[in-house]
Amino acid sequence: MTVQQTSFEALTVDSLPHRLGRIGALAGRIGRDSAAWKVREVGDGNLNLVFIVDGPTGSVVVKQALPYVRLVGDSWPLPLKRSFFEYHALTRQEARAPGIVPQVLHFDEAQALIVMEYLTPHVILRKALIAGHELPLIAKDLGLFMARTLFRGADLAMPTRDRKADLALFADNVELCDITENLVFTDPYFEAAMNRHTAPQLDPVVAELRADRDLRVEAQRMKHLFAANAETLLHGDLHSGSIMVTGDETRVIDPEFAFYGPMAFDVGMLLANFWMSYFSQDGHEAAGPRDSMRAYLLGVVAETWAVFRAEFARLWRTERTGMLYHRSLFEDRGDMIGSEQALGAVLQSIWHDMLGFAGIEIHRRILGLAHNADFETIEDEDLRASCEAPALRFGRQITVARHKMHSIDEVNALAALIRGEVRR
Amino acid sequence: MTVQQTSFEALTVDSLPHRLGRIGALAGRIGRDSAAWKVREVGDGNLNLVFIVDGPTGSVVVKQALPYVRLVGDSWPLPLKRSFFEYHALTRQEARAPGIVPQVLHFDEAQALIVMEYLTPHVILRKALIAGHELPLIAKDLGLFMARTLFRGADLAMPTRDRKADLALFADNVELCDITENLVFTDPYFEAAMNRHTAPQLDPVVAELRADRDLRVEAQRMKHLFAANAETLLHGDLHSGSIMVTGDETRVIDPEFAFYGPMAFDVGMLLANFWMSYFSQDGHEAAGPRDSMRAYLLGVVAETWAVFRAEFARLWRTERTGMLYHRSLFEDRGDMIGSEQALGAVLQSIWHDMLGFAGIEIHRRILGLAHNADFETIEDEDLRASCEAPALRFGRQITVARHKMHSIDEVNALAALIRGEVRR
Repeated sequence: MTVQQTSFEALTVDSLPHRLGRIGALAGRIGRDSAAWKVREVGDGNLNLVFIVDGPTGSVVVKQALPYVRLVGDSWPLPLKRSFFEYHALTRQEARAPGIVPQVLHFDEAQALIVMEYLTPHVILRKALIAGHELPLIAKDLGLFMARTLFRGADLAMPTRDRKADLALFADNVELCDITENLVFTDPYFEAAMNRHTAPQLDPVVAELRADRDLRVEAQRMKHLFAANAETLLHGDLHSGSIMVTGDETRVIDPEFAFYGPMAFDVGMLLANFWMSYFSQDGHEAAGPRDSMRAYLLGVVAETWAVFRAEFARLWRTERTGMLYHRSLFEDRGDMIGSEQALGAVLQSIWHDMLGFAGIEIHRRILGLAHNADFETIEDEDLRASCEAPALRFGRQITVARHKMHSIDEVNALAALIRGEVRR
Repeated sequence: MTVQQTSFEALTVDSLPHRLGRIGALAGRIGRDSAAWKVREVGDGNLNLVFIVDGPTGSVVVKQALPYVRLVGDSWPLPLKRSFFEYHALTRQEARAPGIVPQVLHFDEAQALIVMEYLTPHVILRKALIAGHELPLIAKDLGLFMARTLFRGADLAMPTRDRKADLALFADNVELCDITENLVFTDPYFEAAMNRHTAPQLDPVVAELRADRDLRVEAQRMKHLFAANAETLLHGDLHSGSIMVTGDETRVIDPEFAFYGPMAFDVGMLLANFWMSYFSQDGHEAAGPRDSMRAYLLGVVAETWAVFRAEFARLWRTERTGMLYHRSLFEDRGDMIGSEQALGAVLQSIWHDMLGFAGIEIHRRILGLAHNADFETIEDEDLRASCEAPALRFGRQITVARHKMHSIDEVNALAALIRGEVRR
């Protein structure tokens, strides 16, 4: 056994085989002769090192946190403990929605590294959507994933003692919550230093949004909910860059932003990314029209929401063993209708909150620091802005008027209407 | 220095002077000759030992937790750590609303004991209200206390990193939260073993309430909010038995149920206890009519809510230094009206939630395990039931119809109307 290092040191392509060569779970999978391993660093995210290690009998991914934001450098410190939270989120997600997150082979807290299953031939969902691929299973797989992780991590199913202990554990993931609190909920709505947008094309609509009092108030109401409501363990960063796909498999990665927050946040962020893909398709028509892709994306939104609702309702009826909406008050006294009425109230609350979170996610991806490749890869800035502007207007509307929206089809129709106004 | 005991042992009247005789903060206050101390055990609450210790130069209170519920005995274990949470809540309340909670002189975590200021000639507010005393300052003092502790313990004022660390600390107060979750929010709404009510007089209204689907659903919505929303440090048990008064001073005691929860819970529980006092006055008219007392109590409700709102608004305008509703989005860009709009939304949310929590607090005090002396001291059961029944109906209405109620005067008028129907 190699002597484990106790103080953190970043891995390199050269040092990795030596440092990890004696980890049984790793060597057993890819081959015991670590000198034969081939290591590539492939991290293209904002925060971490990511290595693919190929050995004679298999491959793994090694993800290691750095004590700062990789995108920015050591001027923006970020604690290594995010790896600890990612590891614990992965184990909980696997227990609650088996088979979706990568299998964890090894975790080293001091080195902030996780060795996990290498997903191949999977690609990042965002890239597939930009390329115009219509993945047939994502709505079903992701609707089920969200319903299962969100329901089973709440007092609806968990013993509340366990949830409170876990909430206390994840409450320490404060630096990553801080990123969301500032970059998602606040910065896009004023002239913050790290913001950027497609200029000058978007200047008028950006000025209009920042002058919009109702939008600023509602965005801050959503931030209040995000910070105060600790009902379940969230993925915390569930966008199309955190999902890997093949034609017949959907996997969810990178839960380092996990914490106990409101169910609607994961749902809203995911649907927002589908809607952004929808608005961005006009920028990717060089090789042919994307009408079918647009119809597919609105269909994915509708189906994801429908699957989420249906699975949530199924779990409500069959796994509601926690202290909330206890069966002694409903089913056990013959009042099935009361249980359904309560379910309706919970889903309605998630619905309205989901729309608010979705609108804000769209805004921050176009106005804030971390933009989406969906729009960023549109090189013609006029064309890009003509995709971004309607997305911004749509985001404003579903945030501010969220309590007046009644169905996902109605919201999809609003997206099509707002896009159509620009394209007419 | 006496050798400190490391394993818990309950104090007795006889052992207290020896065991606490060398604690400087205590001896310095009441006299160094502990043989001259006079000790009385006066605990009349449900959970703990409470001693008054009189010495040559002063008096103190010693409150010690027991490893079980005193009211029930060791068949209902309850951890000693509640003393730890009470101590930490007292220090935070003193920092946020100085001068209201008892001064803490000494805390011993292993012995689960707190030595604190002896409040004299204060009496328990509930007893004063039963006796028909119109305390002139309680509305102002308690409105200020709630606004200051609830605002300053939230992300409105606290650095969110500090709030999250504190939230994690108090998340371990799970056993006392469990008492509230079950005894307050659940048991009253079905035939739970520990329930009791004035029978058979109340049987019809109790059956009506338990058959009331909307009430059961809304009570569980409030429980969901109570369990999920962790926005600020609550007192957690702010009823008229946790308040001590003289004609010119109001003090708040016993925060062992403290945890991070929704602001509206403390407000709703307190107003519920004023409303219960109002409905109970008909049972205390043997020595003369209580018309003036009833008018006083509705006035206290209205003034408490008005003072709470006004102080909350003042803090919003002058101390909003936390991450929520940040000034960069409002005042700093000249949008004072936007800040006021957001304040209105926050207060409206507290208003509706407060009514829901108040209705449930009324129900559990008449239908659950822990009843109020306001009603319990009415010996004539017919008379008691004739006070309790309208209180139950009022509680139902403010819970179920809370979103349709617009002002505290309107809710007070509803209370008077419901009482009048019975008395007519």
